Amino acid sequence: MSPAATALVADLKRANVLASVQSLLSWDEQVYLPSDSAARRAEQSALLAELHHREATNPRIGESLAALESLGADAAEDERVLRRQARKDYDRLTKLPAEFVAEKARLDSASYHAWAAARAARDFAQFAPFLERQLGMARREAELLGLADAYDHALDKHDPGITAARLETLFAELKRDLVPLARRIVAGRVPDRRAALCGFPVEQQGEFLREVTAALGFDYGRGRIDVSLHPFCSGDGHDIRMTTRFDADNPLDSLFSAIHETGHGLYEQGLAREWIGTPLGEAVGMGIHESQSRLWENQVARSRAFWQFWEPRFRARFAPRLDGMSSEELHRAINAVQPTLIRVDADEVTYNLHIILRFEIEQRLFRGELAVADLPATWNALAQELLGLTPAHDGEGCLQDVHWSGGAFGYFPSYCLGNMIAAQLWYAVRAALPGLDEDLAAGRFDRLLGWLRTQIHGRGRRLETEELVRAVTGEGISSRHLVRYLGERYLPLNGG
Amino acid sequence: MSPAATALVADLKRANVLASVQSLLSWDEQVYLPSDSAARRAEQSALLAELHHREATNPRIGESLAALESLGADAAEDERVLRRQARKDYDRLTKLPAEFVAEKARLDSASYHAWAAARAARDFAQFAPFLERQLGMARREAELLGLADAYDHALDKHDPGITAARLETLFAELKRDLVPLARRIVAGRVPDRRAALCGFPVEQQGEFLREVTAALGFDYGRGRIDVSLHPFCSGDGHDIRMTTRFDADNPLDSLFSAIHETGHGLYEQGLAREWIGTPLGEAVGMGIHESQSRLWENQVARSRAFWQFWEPRFRARFAPRLDGMSSEELHRAINAVQPTLIRVDADEVTYNLHIILRFEIEQRLFRGELAVADLPATWNALAQELLGLTPAHDGEGCLQDVHWSGGAFGYFPSYCLGNMIAAQLWYAVRAALPGLDEDLAAGRFDRLLGWLRTQIHGRGRRLETEELVRAVTGEGISSRHLVRYLGERYLPLNGG
Repeated sequence: MSPAATALVADLKRANVLASVQSLLSWDEQVYLPSDSAARRAEQSALLAELHHREATNPRIGESLAALESLGADAAEDERVLRRQARKDYDRLTKLPAEFVAEKARLDSASYHAWAAARAARDFAQFAPFLERQLGMARREAELLGLADAYDHALDKHDPGITAARLETLFAELKRDLVPLARRIVAGRVPDRRAALCGFPVEQQGEFLREVTAALGFDYGRGRIDVSLHPFCSGDGHDIRMTTRFDADNPLDSLFSAIHETGHGLYEQGLAREWIGTPLGEAVGMGIHESQSRLWENQVARSRAFWQFWEPRFRARFAPRLDGMSSEELHRAINAVQPTLIRVDADEVTYNLHIILRFEIEQRLFRGELAVADLPATWNALAQELLGLTPAHDGEGCLQDVHWSGGAFGYFPSYCLGNMIAAQLWYAVRAALPGLDEDLAAGRFDRLLGWLRTQIHGRGRRLETEELVRAVTGEGISSRHLVRYLGERYLPLNGG
Repeated sequence: MSPAATALVADLKRANVLASVQSLLSWDEQVYLPSDSAARRAEQSALLAELHHREATNPRIGESLAALESLGADAAEDERVLRRQARKDYDRLTKLPAEFVAEKARLDSASYHAWAAARAARDFAQFAPFLERQLGMARREAELLGLADAYDHALDKHDPGITAARLETLFAELKRDLVPLARRIVAGRVPDRRAALCGFPVEQQGEFLREVTAALGFDYGRGRIDVSLHPFCSGDGHDIRMTTRFDADNPLDSLFSAIHETGHGLYEQGLAREWIGTPLGEAVGMGIHESQSRLWENQVARSRAFWQFWEPRFRARFAPRLDGMSSEELHRAINAVQPTLIRVDADEVTYNLHIILRFEIEQRLFRGELAVADLPATWNALAQELLGLTPAHDGEGCLQDVHWSGGAFGYFPSYCLGNMIAAQLWYAVRAALPGLDEDLAAGRFDRLLGWLRTQIHGRGRRLETEELVRAVTGEGISSRHLVRYLGERYLPLNGG
């Protein structure tokens, strides 16, 4: 490695150590922080953010980048990845003036509280001026970075290389195929017996999900799982902090939340450890990350093959609670479909419709085709069109998600991209590894994880989102794999 | 407040925010860190230490101090405290060259591992060269700070104003009175029935100790208690992190550990919150800190009055486990005396003998009267003289404690000072608050805590250790209160 690359790596890793401390503070805040210590934590996090920004914008990084760039095509391949991705990150950090960053931080805080109050009051009008200002900030951010399209920039921050035009095609195809499929599945639904799953002791739920996630390959020597209000996965391959939540009367929720977060954790643990904190040891973006969590949660852990191994263990652990439920009923409970107005409560069939709705609204907002004041009406119309449901108030409509209050535009599409990519990877790995169902039925995940390690995790940020999908599957991102998978999984269960 | 004082306070608080993050990292390391993540944590802690040092040695602090010092006697009282104490801290940090600090950090690490290996091998000779080097570093540190006496400096770091000469008098008096008293108590011992306390479910132990410590006044809105190998208390009044440990067959250990740490936590929570991070909102030192933990643990929580309230609750919570034990037997179990070679296992009577032993050795080492090579023989002779026991090997003798491996000389005396001061405060508060036993018997601690808040906690670092004791009790530190207390508590229980 050239001296400039060595210096760059050292400085990036140093900044990343501070980022990892920020991440731990945030984990602790959601898991263990005493109720009245939040102001102190805000102070600690703000100072760490300041010091991290100082390290990540260290002029020495700019000098190392310039030196690497002067090598042109002579640079080694990994050094070209390093300089390209580190340049992108460095410019984003250094081209935004301190006043802009400070104004954004103040707006995020005020906007969050306005959103929470508006949601409680079920009154979008209270939040509208803040959303307007966040849209303005997103446009200014793109301008300051010299980028032509603010929404493309917002999308690129979450999924490098993905544009609004690309998503428009993808989501149009998905909508065309998924809306009728979802309608067919919903129409054919048989009542499920999820409600019969009650009285599952929380401690045993924790033991069971630990057994399952360890079997998937999560290394508990470098990570742990705790409890928080909303499940999440934070940290990096040195130390992953996942969470789940427990409800004695909903054992599938804690289990599938844990498996989902384990998918994120396995990705982080599969990044090259020696390169953590640099583009060679970082995740591509949100969509690829979500593809990992969804693949393990849905394609793997909701399958019949998976439960062939785990059902007897599940029954034994919680005996006699499952005695009155047949295997088929358990499988139906695991794959229940139920349209809902609330995205976070959605099943995997209708979930994608919630994302199409949000993408269409974001796109119209950024194009200037939708005024903020008209957002609730558009939301409600789309909800009726896509889900067949109309919110009774903004609290279960356009105010349900926190994302926009923080100006996180372009984030929602990643969830659906993740679902599409997960399905696409699923068919690719089944072709690459014949007998995969037999693996799952035997409780073996090493070949699947090994394939993901090689094909996805080990590559770091060498490729952008769609480049990576193409390299692994031989084609660009396509919605047809997701539609195929949903049809194959859900039609037979729902009268199809 | 003058502009210089305002600037000083802001800079001190800023450095303190980083210190509080270091403290959280250390807490997490001992409570929740995954087993293979220690190297990453070391990296995080080292970077935080570097950044904290940079903030705490910010030249602006020196400028503010100089400006405050130029005010001379015109400065307001609190500003005089601020400048005196902040100057002491600042000089200690800035007068030690970076090379010295780095050398010390390397030595601490190597020395710790050498100590751990030597202890496992029960072979002091392996550790001797490291102890020799730590003594040399302590002497060099005093020289670099321009201080005449290295041991006085070591003592002052833990208990401001306390000198070796002062301790010599105090410990000579204590030794004169305590050795015969302890001998009498031990000779009169009646077998206790601690071993009968077994099968106490850990979860209920946790609930009970939380109920007790909350009743003492610990604010769980700004603190928590978790589990670690060795109990400790970290954090500050914004967010206290205490720990205890559980053994189903030793419920008194977790409870008294928790009460001890709660004493530390109550002190921190009683410091003026708006001044945390500055000398006006910081603890005086180790001895005063320990006086708080010991007062709650021993004088309060081992008393008959205390158990008058808590015994029925203890019995009910763990019914029927205490049915075969009388109240008198429970009281004896709580106040059992048993000489042991191991300091951390010692009861409150013989504990102080362990400290006298360590003080005499430290003093002789620093005076050059004892060669490191001769330490084990001297240790064993003193153990026989003071405790009537001789270690079978260095592992249960001079290698039992970690402190010296980190060069923490002058630390042990604080434990015994804490015991002396706790007893002295105990008689003072009983005089100041008639009917205190009735409070304890009614489960009320507000008057006691209120008195400690006013007399000790609220004063911050305005006074040095012995000045504070004098201000509160009307006399300097004296061992006679401890001897009186131990006699009154333990002679009646042990044939006296």
